[in-house]
Amino acid sequence: MTDDDLAFASIADLARRIRRGELGPVTLTERLLERIRRLDPRLHAFIAVTADRALAQARGAELALRAGHDLGPLHGVPFAVKDLYDVAGLATTAGTRLLAHNVAGADCAAVRRLSAAGMVLLGKTHTVQFAFGGVGINHDHGTPHNPWHETLHAPGGSSSGSGVAVAAGLAPVALGTDTGGSVRIPAALCGTVGLKTTVGRISRAGVYPLSWTLDSVGPLTRTVEDAALVYQALQGMDLADETTAGVAPIDALDVLRRGVKGLRIAFGETVFFDGVAPEVDKAVREAGEVLRGLGAHVDRMAIPEVAEAFGEQRRALFVAAEACTVNRALLDEHFAELDPVVAHRMVPGRTLSAPDYFAVMRQYAALRRRVRQTLADVDALLVPTTMIAARPVAAIDASPETYAEHNLKYLRNTSLGNVLDLCAVALPCGFTGDGLPIGLMIYAKPFDEATALRVAYAYEQATDWHRRRPALTWAQRPAPAPSGPRNRAGRA
Amino acid sequence: MTDDDLAFASIADLARRIRRGELGPVTLTERLLERIRRLDPRLHAFIAVTADRALAQARGAELALRAGHDLGPLHGVPFAVKDLYDVAGLATTAGTRLLAHNVAGADCAAVRRLSAAGMVLLGKTHTVQFAFGGVGINHDHGTPHNPWHETLHAPGGSSSGSGVAVAAGLAPVALGTDTGGSVRIPAALCGTVGLKTTVGRISRAGVYPLSWTLDSVGPLTRTVEDAALVYQALQGMDLADETTAGVAPIDALDVLRRGVKGLRIAFGETVFFDGVAPEVDKAVREAGEVLRGLGAHVDRMAIPEVAEAFGEQRRALFVAAEACTVNRALLDEHFAELDPVVAHRMVPGRTLSAPDYFAVMRQYAALRRRVRQTLADVDALLVPTTMIAARPVAAIDASPETYAEHNLKYLRNTSLGNVLDLCAVALPCGFTGDGLPIGLMIYAKPFDEATALRVAYAYEQATDWHRRRPALTWAQRPAPAPSGPRNRAGRA
Repeated sequence: MTDDDLAFASIADLARRIRRGELGPVTLTERLLERIRRLDPRLHAFIAVTADRALAQARGAELALRAGHDLGPLHGVPFAVKDLYDVAGLATTAGTRLLAHNVAGADCAAVRRLSAAGMVLLGKTHTVQFAFGGVGINHDHGTPHNPWHETLHAPGGSSSGSGVAVAAGLAPVALGTDTGGSVRIPAALCGTVGLKTTVGRISRAGVYPLSWTLDSVGPLTRTVEDAALVYQALQGMDLADETTAGVAPIDALDVLRRGVKGLRIAFGETVFFDGVAPEVDKAVREAGEVLRGLGAHVDRMAIPEVAEAFGEQRRALFVAAEACTVNRALLDEHFAELDPVVAHRMVPGRTLSAPDYFAVMRQYAALRRRVRQTLADVDALLVPTTMIAARPVAAIDASPETYAEHNLKYLRNTSLGNVLDLCAVALPCGFTGDGLPIGLMIYAKPFDEATALRVAYAYEQATDWHRRRPALTWAQRPAPAPSGPRNRAGRA
Repeated sequence: MTDDDLAFASIADLARRIRRGELGPVTLTERLLERIRRLDPRLHAFIAVTADRALAQARGAELALRAGHDLGPLHGVPFAVKDLYDVAGLATTAGTRLLAHNVAGADCAAVRRLSAAGMVLLGKTHTVQFAFGGVGINHDHGTPHNPWHETLHAPGGSSSGSGVAVAAGLAPVALGTDTGGSVRIPAALCGTVGLKTTVGRISRAGVYPLSWTLDSVGPLTRTVEDAALVYQALQGMDLADETTAGVAPIDALDVLRRGVKGLRIAFGETVFFDGVAPEVDKAVREAGEVLRGLGAHVDRMAIPEVAEAFGEQRRALFVAAEACTVNRALLDEHFAELDPVVAHRMVPGRTLSAPDYFAVMRQYAALRRRVRQTLADVDALLVPTTMIAARPVAAIDASPETYAEHNLKYLRNTSLGNVLDLCAVALPCGFTGDGLPIGLMIYAKPFDEATALRVAYAYEQATDWHRRRPALTWAQRPAPAPSGPRNRAGRA
């Protein structure tokens, strides 16, 4: 098994090899740690590598498995988490040096759950500051490098490092968070699978909040089955996150392989395809044809609530207001030290009035009720994850205007799903002429992650996109010296 | 049994007489309806009298009881509700003519519960507009007349009509709502018992909101036992009010008669006694002596969280912001038609920023956690319900400044309990030299209504204050013609 084969193996495949005795968790962990050491200076996916913890967990998993104490398919498999997740003994920086001393006393709920399933923590991945941005740029800790291009291209955000780590074969899964698309955008731009779960499915306790109303926890993986496996382990009630109260777990694996015959799938024609790059549009339409070929009913559908949600100008303000509440002291006392593309976009949330805030909340609640009616007779929606593929960071970051324009192109389609309380799987459905991944998004109704995964799995199995690997030859070269404050390395 | 004896009988007493066959629900209802017709033109407690419904319910109760279908002590007993409670077929006006067409399609949860217990609805009582005020003045529908004085004195608010109805013997119980003291203040000024329940105890579904964070439902009665009886029937989970989820009912009647021997009771010395009228101070201190005489340990206690809560200048803004959210369309489009003493006080809530709103919410949450620690070793607190007794409406309403000054004197001690999530019983503990009632407030910890009622019952049984009745001879005279917009009759 070559180093590359191991690095790009799926969790399901690794689990099989571990159980056949071809591979031990310790070897697997050592080889991934070595790969991180070799490639990450250029990829810049990790802010912290937890080598000691990883090796200790791997040894524990190896001994347990040898003793026949098998915790299931995640046992002995490495993972990484975005730097919003509390990990005992490490700083949760949320992408700012100002929080370098914000050391967590305990693992967050999600890390505890994956550890309980036998997983091995490799480290923490970079995030857009406060998770507030869809491009993936971080002017403080530096911007992770999209593995699909030698020139620095946007990795997508805010779970930028998680997308890069998974796409570059540094970890088979990395957790992200998704408030407006922060799992799905890096998945689209880096060519991985990203699962946006319904708020209430997975505990957010111990995860640094952006918007307590919209934040969700979800994995980035290289296959749909892997996303389902990790989802299975993460879901469930937690008294420390009241949104999980009373939510019954589902068995996503059970339905994964049932195929799409007879499922009612529709292109979401309202807003989602407006202004989308022709290559992206074409790839998503072709994905619909693939699903039709597999026996699904594939239609086109207007969804008026999407237009209403998109027309609500206070949408971003609402998230900014919650973010201002969370980060108030930093904004008040350290504004100049924050990432300008983040801090300036938060400012308008500072003055959103409470009655306006609740007016938007109520409007959204009404839209959420109505969209459930509109979607009553459909199982899944197909839309482009992002309007365009990854672009060079230099072009995006030329001015506040170019940043805002790109941010919207990355965030628009995903953020509508957060507002409307949908769940979704993002996965690759093609590549641009420049060799950059194109993302398909499969939306399903609230708490119906199983159907989103089922459709995604059928599509993935019928296509080859997930088998492509980035070349990464350029990443083998030694990293250049840090180039100043615009893209500091800033490793913890 | 004289008309007055019947009018001022307690629920417990009525229940006994009904079961002994001395009194039927129909006779009882007819006599109270007649009394309302006779006295309410001057007292102005009721905005709507539901005579047909009352007689139909009374007949139903009478037949059921004769058949041996006994629903318990409330069966066949009349009640009234504040005009925030939805009653099928009647407008819920919340104290403004602008909502005269806001007709409810169904009874609210509390009315359904009391109806299910066999009670007989007499009608709806006046409220301060939007329940936003402690004095009891309503410039739109008119101000209820405090029964203890011939000259129009403040009834206390916002459950002004409920206080007057119970104090004047028009109903043995009337429901109020308490967001900053709106049950306890009219109880204090009208000399009745008022129970402020913990948010989560009783469903607020179908009750016009002032502040969804602080609103609570509670009864005004003439005895502590009656408050406990009605509380017993009202409490319990309701899916339509999520604050009630998972709250286990308690048996308040079980502990009512256990006495106070060994209970740890303290005067709440921080803020609560500052600037209190000497007569009020003296009466409350003497109430402590009575309880000491009954075997309670009575101490003095500082509660730092009370000073912190009182010092938070955004306290009123926070409620105003929620009220602005609820009443936004009326404020935006009909400002000039609203009661000026209410509308102008809501305005600052319109611009409270969402981050400031949540900052106050978090500060309160922290105070609530801390005050539970501070109160860990005490069973109940004794404080004056209001800083002063009822005063003439003409003096209070002389200017916005005199209104604000009196509003604070009525609201201060009660509103601190709402912020700190305490429950309380207010009950009479004396009378001023002018013959106006003085209120004692017994605070207990969150969800410990049973202890507040137990202490109040012991005190009440040891004293005679609750046996006093207002003279009301002046109220027998025909009412004057409506005197213009400052105190319109405005009967529905």
